[in-house]
Amino acid sequence: MTNVSIAPCILVIFGGTGDLTHRKLIPALYNLKHQNWLPSRFAIVAVGRRDKTDEEYRNETRNSVKKHSRFEIDDNIWNNFCRQLFYKKLDFLNIDGYDELNAFLSGIDNEFGTEGNRAYYLATAPENFETIIKNLHISKMAVNTEKPWQRIVIEKPFGSSLSSARRLNKIISGVFSERNIYRIDHYLGKEMVQSIMGVRFFNTLFEPLWSNKYIDNIQISSCETIGIENRGEYYEKTGALGDMVQNHMLQILALLAMEPPNAFNAEAIRDEKVKVLSSIKEFTSYTTACDVVLGQYSEGEVEGRKVPGYRQENKVSPDSETETFTALKIEVDNPRWKGVPFYIRTGKRLAAKRTDIVIELKPSLYISNPVDSNIPNPVFSSAPGPNLLVIRIQPREELFIQFNTKRPGILEKICPVRMTYCQKCEICQAENNSPDAYEKLIIDVINGDSTLFTRWDEVEKSWAFIEKIKALKEAGKCCFSFYKPGTWGPEESEHLLERDGRHWWNL
Amino acid sequence: MTNVSIAPCILVIFGGTGDLTHRKLIPALYNLKHQNWLPSRFAIVAVGRRDKTDEEYRNETRNSVKKHSRFEIDDNIWNNFCRQLFYKKLDFLNIDGYDELNAFLSGIDNEFGTEGNRAYYLATAPENFETIIKNLHISKMAVNTEKPWQRIVIEKPFGSSLSSARRLNKIISGVFSERNIYRIDHYLGKEMVQSIMGVRFFNTLFEPLWSNKYIDNIQISSCETIGIENRGEYYEKTGALGDMVQNHMLQILALLAMEPPNAFNAEAIRDEKVKVLSSIKEFTSYTTACDVVLGQYSEGEVEGRKVPGYRQENKVSPDSETETFTALKIEVDNPRWKGVPFYIRTGKRLAAKRTDIVIELKPSLYISNPVDSNIPNPVFSSAPGPNLLVIRIQPREELFIQFNTKRPGILEKICPVRMTYCQKCEICQAENNSPDAYEKLIIDVINGDSTLFTRWDEVEKSWAFIEKIKALKEAGKCCFSFYKPGTWGPEESEHLLERDGRHWWNL
Repeated sequence: MTNVSIAPCILVIFGGTGDLTHRKLIPALYNLKHQNWLPSRFAIVAVGRRDKTDEEYRNETRNSVKKHSRFEIDDNIWNNFCRQLFYKKLDFLNIDGYDELNAFLSGIDNEFGTEGNRAYYLATAPENFETIIKNLHISKMAVNTEKPWQRIVIEKPFGSSLSSARRLNKIISGVFSERNIYRIDHYLGKEMVQSIMGVRFFNTLFEPLWSNKYIDNIQISSCETIGIENRGEYYEKTGALGDMVQNHMLQILALLAMEPPNAFNAEAIRDEKVKVLSSIKEFTSYTTACDVVLGQYSEGEVEGRKVPGYRQENKVSPDSETETFTALKIEVDNPRWKGVPFYIRTGKRLAAKRTDIVIELKPSLYISNPVDSNIPNPVFSSAPGPNLLVIRIQPREELFIQFNTKRPGILEKICPVRMTYCQKCEICQAENNSPDAYEKLIIDVINGDSTLFTRWDEVEKSWAFIEKIKALKEAGKCCFSFYKPGTWGPEESEHLLERDGRHWWNL
Repeated sequence: MTNVSIAPCILVIFGGTGDLTHRKLIPALYNLKHQNWLPSRFAIVAVGRRDKTDEEYRNETRNSVKKHSRFEIDDNIWNNFCRQLFYKKLDFLNIDGYDELNAFLSGIDNEFGTEGNRAYYLATAPENFETIIKNLHISKMAVNTEKPWQRIVIEKPFGSSLSSARRLNKIISGVFSERNIYRIDHYLGKEMVQSIMGVRFFNTLFEPLWSNKYIDNIQISSCETIGIENRGEYYEKTGALGDMVQNHMLQILALLAMEPPNAFNAEAIRDEKVKVLSSIKEFTSYTTACDVVLGQYSEGEVEGRKVPGYRQENKVSPDSETETFTALKIEVDNPRWKGVPFYIRTGKRLAAKRTDIVIELKPSLYISNPVDSNIPNPVFSSAPGPNLLVIRIQPREELFIQFNTKRPGILEKICPVRMTYCQKCEICQAENNSPDAYEKLIIDVINGDSTLFTRWDEVEKSWAFIEKIKALKEAGKCCFSFYKPGTWGPEESEHLLERDGRHWWNL
């Protein structure tokens, strides 16, 4: 897409005064404008329930952009941006205002030449998704035509269980065809997650090694130091399994484990991801005891400051059993991955903030070669470590390799050293820094590329996997422990790997 | 050899006042002392033809150490070092003085407890090697006993042709057994050359890729910017083929191409290296025209300064046809390497000073995958490059990888980037820098480890290969051209690779 041309359209944001819009969407749109990605035949209409003039809305969002944009505001660019940015008051739960909204959008079409194409971005609370979609349908704003087109963008979470996800999907797909549905998993828009395919398939250095023949295990960690930050109500419903594992973690796993797609396009890639999700072995009451670790943070100290336990957080039940930590040993049951555990781990209030993927290779077959003990000076005598390929997603975007080489000096010691490629440090230094995931995802919606969005069958398979764990947890079959803030989670998470003679790489 | 203990012995340096001794040997010995590698039961006796007291010799070498040592002189350490350093006047071409030398060494034995063990280091002009060895033999200073032992260290060049090498070897092996003969190829003592085996065999990341299945070609370059620097007499006899290819370049090639040794010891490793040298396809009058490029630098400018052509150099014949540049396309004719060319290149007065090994992998099989042209936004659309593994031997010791990853940004471009491990920058920053090759080689002689020295059969095979090229050159079957200083050699060197659709990586 070197010569990508942004299709003319209006981006309609439901929840225009909400947190996500202020923190992510408008800053992302401004950044796109800053980089000259937004053409003139494009407009943004933010829809909200509050009374507000365009002027007021633009001023409010200017503050948000100031705070959250990676580019400094340039007055000229900002003024041009504002000409394309509108606020429209609407009680989106009430069908009555939709005709007026439609008329307003048609007016914009005339002014901007946006040809009736619309991307509806649902950035409201999830409980409103169904009503908005129904209202769009009733008011004939979503008629499923090819030209003009209407697309729907659904923010996470897509349901909070298998059944609620199914229900939501039924409603959406009654109105929009699958190719017009864009389920956001913003991890897929992150630079280093996008890099996974390139690294895997476009390097003879890595591609031939990508199987149980050379890989010992794969670790995917997404660790946070913060707690749930006043999101008690949301978190009580989802827990770490719903908030992180069902979507982000399993998506990363699918990208790492999938077979090479027939072509690098949305359908072929997502076909392969679904195959991985279908190959994940379901946990049983026998395996959960060993392979599932759930935990919840207790009160404690972080950097000398007292922090409350999860049960003491706002809007959390004092006897909540919601997990704020999950570690799983996952088996992808196919010929490529037989015998290679995928360890995934995510949690709040952990020792460090970082999301990374560690691919640990099997030890070199030559390391155990017996060294002739008659030789006073065997060429290599100390113990090298396993090779690692590490893809760090955040906070820094980097890729590094741990390999063995001779330690400089008279002694012939082989030791592990690292080689790093830091994306921000190298290529990006002249280009500010990497785009936020939302910049990329918004462009893809506008251009009709759903590669980085989850297809329904992916969502369904993931929820089915999580549902099983939740059921086993409720039946008391899972290990559930408390852990101190500032640690790497409950001890059982360490045992999960120690039992296999392995350990987490906290790099 | 973590607990290596230096065997008691006397290191006797023939050519004690020579250039090599001043620039390399004494500084290396001082550096060893500085790092506490030299024990008390050890002494150095420098033998030279000039009249000189110990005091004078120590003062002269102090200046050399000041200039060439990587550690600054510490007075305390220097004084201790001097207690072990002696000068002995001897006309080594005359048998008469040897008894006296022997008596002198015996006196040192008594004083230092060196038990009669002797390492004779021949650092004189090569034409004196034979006489010195004969004199050592006649004077019974080399009696081939196990205890005490006598070892001989031969500096390069080991002969200047196959026949002269054979003659020299016959004389040496008439006096010393092969296990006591240490033929120096100081490239083998260089840190990054020593690293080749560790990198190849102790990394699952690299070991499985090490064959014609994944490697497209291997390039070994040793480029210098300087000319022959007043060494006309020597260079007229050897040329680039004898000075660089026969020894250093072919040794590196052997380390890169060899099969895994049965054990990591001197005999097993050298057995494998000989197998490689035996598998190199000899050039014929048909192949030389294409695969051998010889050149000689003409006069020109380097950094604004006029420099003479080779034929104008001191002690060079004005119609000399000695090559100062060689590029070869070498075929290692065995199952592992069938179809993988080894391009080697070495020369004087080239564009940059550097010695490196570039292992170029075949392009990823996925790169040519047809991208569905109906998709407006194919995931990957720009052209990635081949993967490279680069081992840089000098001037910097580094290892780097070129691989493909997504270029940060909205566009999904895959591009080649680099990941570097710089030895001096990382591990060594606290340890001054890497030891000089001679430090390692001297320690190995003292300890009786000949892994990093060339065995006779290696030398013989290499000379045979070079001899054939020289014969073809004399028969006018080789391309011979002049090249301008500051270039990468004659144009034909570029054509050598262009013909195969490849190019030199001048990284």
